[in-house]
Amino acid sequence: MKLTREQIQMRLSKLNMDWKLREGNKIEREFNFDNYQDTIEFVNKITGLAEDENHHPDIQFSYGKAKITLSTHEVEGLSEKDFTLASKIDTF
Amino acid sequence: MKLTREQIQMRLSKLNMDWKLREGNKIEREFNFDNYQDTIEFVNKITGLAEDENHHPDIQFSYGKAKITLSTHEVEGLSEKDFTLASKIDTF
Repeated sequence: MKLTREQIQMRLSKLNMDWKLREGNKIEREFNFDNYQDTIEFVNKITGLAEDENHHPDIQFSYGKAKITLSTHEVEGLSEKDFTLASKIDTF
Repeated sequence: MKLTREQIQMRLSKLNMDWKLREGNKIEREFNFDNYQDTIEFVNKITGLAEDENHHPDIQFSYGKAKITLSTHEVEGLSEKDFTLASKIDTF
């Protein structure tokens, strides 16, 4: 189910403050790493989690940087699934 | 060394035609996959190659899709390294 603006704001306030709401329909967080190996290990942890949760973020990465973008295609916006995944990512 | 527009066009013509020149200073290719596992395996092959070549593309992926963007930070444009990596990616 698609979350309302108020529901999104409430859930967003419980996440790491680096999560940003973009265009009202997705959330995004950027991460920095010292080297490529750490970057890849992080990306692999995210993909493992994505498989476990059957919810697949958009992941963009290069040397020392990764950006995770979450949204739910089926609702063309944000759902509970996105915030569940985001809060798990915050524990990494 | 930064490649000229002519050098870029010559090298681009030898790659898979799905490689596109963007803003004159980077090349990009999109790939599609049937499932998440195939997508991740592809991304892992790219990161392995990036480590071998010590040249790190920008990789963006989600379920069933990956986009590889190559450029050389040091020259603020395209170098031989980008085309070497692109031609290796074309063998996957």
